[in-house]
Amino acid sequence: MKKVLFATTALVFSAGIAAAEVSVGGDGRMGVVYNGSDWNFSSRIRVSFTASGTTDGGLEFGGSMRADQASGAKNGTAASVYISGAFGKLSMGDVVGAPEALFGDLPEVGYTDLDGAGLSNVTALDGRNNLGANEIPYLTGDNGGNVVGNDSNSGPNLLYTGTFGAFSVAASMSDGKDVSTSVNQEYAVAGAYTFGNYTVGLGYEIVDPTTGSNAKQAMISGVAQFGNTSVKAYYADGSGSNNLDKGYGIGATSVFGATSVMAYVNYAKADDGTDGTTYGLGAAYDLGGGASIVGGVADSDIANTDTQADLGVKFKF
Amino acid sequence: MKKVLFATTALVFSAGIAAAEVSVGGDGRMGVVYNGSDWNFSSRIRVSFTASGTTDGGLEFGGSMRADQASGAKNGTAASVYISGAFGKLSMGDVVGAPEALFGDLPEVGYTDLDGAGLSNVTALDGRNNLGANEIPYLTGDNGGNVVGNDSNSGPNLLYTGTFGAFSVAASMSDGKDVSTSVNQEYAVAGAYTFGNYTVGLGYEIVDPTTGSNAKQAMISGVAQFGNTSVKAYYADGSGSNNLDKGYGIGATSVFGATSVMAYVNYAKADDGTDGTTYGLGAAYDLGGGASIVGGVADSDIANTDTQADLGVKFKF
Amino acid sequence: MKKVLFATTALVFSAGIAAAEVSVGGDGRMGVVYNGSDWNFSSRIRVSFTASGTTDGGLEFGGSMRADQASGAKNGTAASVYISGAFGKLSMGDVVGAPEALFGDLPEVGYTDLDGAGLSNVTALDGRNNLGANEIPYLTGDNGGNVVGNDSNSGPNLLYTGTFGAFSVAASMSDGKDVSTSVNQEYAVAGAYTFGNYTVGLGYEIVDPTTGSNAKQAMISGVAQFGNTSVKAYYADGSGSNNLDKGYGIGATSVFGATSVMAYVNYAKADDGTDGTTYGLGAAYDLGGGASIVGGVADSDIANTDTQADLGVKFKF
Repeated sequence: MKKVLFATTALVFSAGIAAAEVSVGGDGRMGVVYNGSDWNFSSRIRVSFTASGTTDGGLEFGGSMRADQASGAKNGTAASVYISGAFGKLSMGDVVGAPEALFGDLPEVGYTDLDGAGLSNVTALDGRNNLGANEIPYLTGDNGGNVVGNDSNSGPNLLYTGTFGAFSVAASMSDGKDVSTSVNQEYAVAGAYTFGNYTVGLGYEIVDPTTGSNAKQAMISGVAQFGNTSVKAYYADGSGSNNLDKGYGIGATSVFGATSVMAYVNYAKADDGTDGTTYGLGAAYDLGGGASIVGGVADSDIANTDTQADLGVKFKF
Repeated sequence: MKKVLFATTALVFSAGIAAAEVSVGGDGRMGVVYNGSDWNFSSRIRVSFTASGTTDGGLEFGGSMRADQASGAKNGTAASVYISGAFGKLSMGDVVGAPEALFGDLPEVGYTDLDGAGLSNVTALDGRNNLGANEIPYLTGDNGGNVVGNDSNSGPNLLYTGTFGAFSVAASMSDGKDVSTSVNQEYAVAGAYTFGNYTVGLGYEIVDPTTGSNAKQAMISGVAQFGNTSVKAYYADGSGSNNLDKGYGIGATSVFGATSVMAYVNYAKADDGTDGTTYGLGAAYDLGGGASIVGGVADSDIANTDTQADLGVKFKF
Repeated sequence: MKKVLFATTALVFSAGIAAAEVSVGGDGRMGVVYNGSDWNFSSRIRVSFTASGTTDGGLEFGGSMRADQASGAKNGTAASVYISGAFGKLSMGDVVGAPEALFGDLPEVGYTDLDGAGLSNVTALDGRNNLGANEIPYLTGDNGGNVVGNDSNSGPNLLYTGTFGAFSVAASMSDGKDVSTSVNQEYAVAGAYTFGNYTVGLGYEIVDPTTGSNAKQAMISGVAQFGNTSVKAYYADGSGSNNLDKGYGIGATSVFGATSVMAYVNYAKADDGTDGTTYGLGAAYDLGGGASIVGGVADSDIANTDTQADLGVKFKF
């Protein structure tokens, strides 16, 4: 930001300064949340930035970040940048692992996602990141890591995704370094094949810890579209030092005009034999213009968790 | 921010994604400030985002946040969101209490507000938030709280405001929860009636502490417009466990072409009998285009405070 | 951000609210960095805001900040604001000292700047801020300070720059206060004269510590343009309690079509006789649209430093 009068460095990047653009958007929400004992207010507003440009040769590049993650975005532990072309898309930063890039998670319910009674409450799975009620327990990326010792790999990580006809492929890896300390190295690959309204896919993930044996995880996932209803199911199988023994789940979203209904059941079993099942049911009504009324209920059979519920309005800017 | 290839959740919010908008603005200032012993530089720049949209049914919604409050905006302890229509406006987040929503504070003086010698220097009032030199000592909202024990209610809180002909009404409440710990619950109502160039109003606020007796506060306020001069006065009366016994003040702003002059006198007496009076005098000259030259002096009769003064330029973007 | 229904203060700034503007830009980068033992990923994205307006009398004003520096921007220890006209430009906030405002630093190499083996690794210079491999060791401003005791002057500071025909001048000072604690006071002046493709200049800086004797530094700098090549050289001489005895360096940037090549050699000797030399070599290839491929190597003869290298893409939004 600091302008200097006689700068030799200014010559380097002068050519294309004004061509790429940043658009500003965001989201907001407000409503009430039941945490198992009380109803409380819950609201937020987040502003996000989407940058994009095109090189003279036709490659696309850009990135996105949220205002509240600006600090992490600066060192690649939040947000990400990418360059893409006919070869696919290469992203770096706080990216998901390859299987999650293709398959995502089961549908969220409620206007706040309702993760309070999630699978991370299974004690033996506690070290896994972002393992809420509707999350698929991926081993790597921002949804994984942290499975052996106390090492988390917050980034920057690398993710490649590409779609070639009916085939989609993804590969991801970490560099074994979290800013300046050595942490577990991660690798993952995934592939998916789409025929008509069906997509099926496989994923494989490895965490190569700085000490101890590898943690591995294989998963299969399928997505199907039946009329107004979309169904997603997965099965994940852990081995090695992975603290997940297995997990499976199914979720569905149905759209009837302005109304959407979504539900899921999600199960995970830890390597010590403890397990848990979560389930959620929600609905959303599109008010148009970017606003929706959204509500949901989520619960689990895990000890020390309570039923979660919420009802509110959600905004997209 | 993370795009997923086969997401069932994407169906839910696809309809209205691009309709609402975020505009970017902000403010800046630079100049010199006298803190009672030295003149020092003081400058800042703040960027703010204003999001707004309209549902198909004509309800308006949106929110606003500052870039430097992005973290608090994410959990409702800074910034706020709203939905509004013929029924009025419902806001959630870091909102003011009902009386403050209608009556605000006495006019600021100086380009930096000059709160250094404010009423919060009366020892027995020290726990009240945002109680500077020109602030009305409201009991609830972001200007209040914190009066019994060490509990502050940083949000998200709920605020309703509505104007129906000559009448304006407001109601606000907290949920007794500050993110995850139980804190004092707050309630407040206010009403105002406008006739010609005069507005008069009443406010009533209650803090219902988790232990101990209620703190209560009633206030009356009036605003009058005489030609180029606007005058505001208030009287507030505390009872119960409220640490304010009473407060009153008057402020005025006169506009002569590009020049504005503002002044106030503000008095508060704590429940232990200690009290203080603050006074301020300032002027602003509008340079046009969003820039003003602003300066002021503020002082008080409270022990251990010094005269404050400043002179600088203020920018609106 | 908080709207109040009956505000007297609103009168003051109503005139020019919508005239000034904020534009949103930023930068991103991704690639691999060699830190002397490993190659690691490194990526980031930063969003920046540039505000600008014009008064009715034709003065320009504005400021700029990065989203990740929003907190510091609010108190003048990051980002800055300015007002400018025929008299020159007056900036306040986290500004550079006067000589740096005119002469900047030697060219950066690599997509990450590669400062890991920089002159700050000379033990006796360790307290100086921002003294990387290609940085000129200025005594004041954000590139200096901190030379006597443990006092750093993070701002807000004041900087004046002006260009009158072939002459450019700059003056800067701090207020001896870092937010609320007393710190070293700084003063600096600089001047430059441009004739044809040559610019030569002088700078003088003083740090007047709260205890102990003054630290002083004089510097001479020259910039020359030979066809496609721009060369910058400087010599700096410290005295008094300055921990720099002397420093000198030279850097060059050559542009051949879309390709730029840059190199530097930079030397500094501390007041205890220890010294170090850093050198860097880099190249950039402009892809157009704001994207470049950038790589570089930097090294030094300073103990306990390693060769640094990187290769990546850099984006301007």
